[in-house]
Amino acid sequence: MKLKKRTRNLAETRRAILDAAFNEIHAHGFHASSVDAILEQTGLTKGALFHQFASKLQLGYAVVDEVLTPMTLARWIEPLAAFENPLEGILHQMRTNIVDAPQAMLNLGCPLNNLIQEMANSDRGFQRRLRQVIEAWLDGIEAHVKRGQQSGHVRRSVDAREVAEYVVTLQEGAFSIVKGMRDKRVLVSLLKSMEAVFAGIGPV
Amino acid sequence: MKLKKRTRNLAETRRAILDAAFNEIHAHGFHASSVDAILEQTGLTKGALFHQFASKLQLGYAVVDEVLTPMTLARWIEPLAAFENPLEGILHQMRTNIVDAPQAMLNLGCPLNNLIQEMANSDRGFQRRLRQVIEAWLDGIEAHVKRGQQSGHVRRSVDAREVAEYVVTLQEGAFSIVKGMRDKRVLVSLLKSMEAVFAGIGPV
Repeated sequence: MKLKKRTRNLAETRRAILDAAFNEIHAHGFHASSVDAILEQTGLTKGALFHQFASKLQLGYAVVDEVLTPMTLARWIEPLAAFENPLEGILHQMRTNIVDAPQAMLNLGCPLNNLIQEMANSDRGFQRRLRQVIEAWLDGIEAHVKRGQQSGHVRRSVDAREVAEYVVTLQEGAFSIVKGMRDKRVLVSLLKSMEAVFAGIGPV
Repeated sequence: MKLKKRTRNLAETRRAILDAAFNEIHAHGFHASSVDAILEQTGLTKGALFHQFASKLQLGYAVVDEVLTPMTLARWIEPLAAFENPLEGILHQMRTNIVDAPQAMLNLGCPLNNLIQEMANSDRGFQRRLRQVIEAWLDGIEAHVKRGQQSGHVRRSVDAREVAEYVVTLQEGAFSIVKGMRDKRVLVSLLKSMEAVFAGIGPV
């Protein structure tokens, strides 16, 4: 009984630290993130944090593995299952996750994109993990586009991987430009451009 | 005579510091950049650097204004003047600046994209300057697309600003994905996708 409680508390503590660390890194980047700010948000002691994560770097890795990866799939891939036509689903998620997002959220940028720019070149541990997140995102889109080819919603002549690469690139680019412009109007034309490209690969 | 020499030396020193600072920031990001590394690259003293730039932040701003802005125009806009058809020019620059670039260079990412992700949300001085770089890039592409509409290379029904937004977004997205993937193969399909979009807005 005591062991069980302790296990639950450790898991809950870990979750609280990871969530706070994700928010801190999303807002400030990894280098500028402060362990003290994470402790303040969670009300935990430094000892409790370093009991679970050997260093700030290890905490950063765990944020990618345990928060960013499942979040990316939950935001961009899992909702596609509800759409008979995956291209409609992709456009819907582009609207929900980017076009209709509040400017204040867009100003923070895409958490994956932020970390790639900041860390992919300077740390191999981040590099490998961030690459895996992109690959999981691409694999997910590709699988749904292939499903659309089976069901006749996407032309069979289309390369599903290329569609996935176009989609993920345009979305990461959109996050980048909107963060830099501080103005989401640009998203309207990006959505139109994606609609035009999809019209060209839909059923003839 | 003495005054002239001193002026020239100040200008040369400023240039050397800015170039070294640009390289340092491109490789490591602004926060992780070290003033000592910049001094080591230039062989200058701390006094010489802080005589011209009041702080590391002011040096960062000057890098955006005096290096990044002219570099962006020199890489993406000025070469378009040599192409009768601006769409051909845009595809050519996409090939030259991204698709054919060495992977080691691509691993560093786009210097503009890196700084947007790292600094646009946390510092108003960077925010304003980075926005101006994107706007100059968009304005330049838009002007050339309009020239193409005049000369009959681009359909008049097309919104030139939307084309510019699509081009800059896809290119910044491409830098981001290739930096994250450490693999430039994805660029082949992005170039194909841009060619297909351009085929749709070229002469009927």
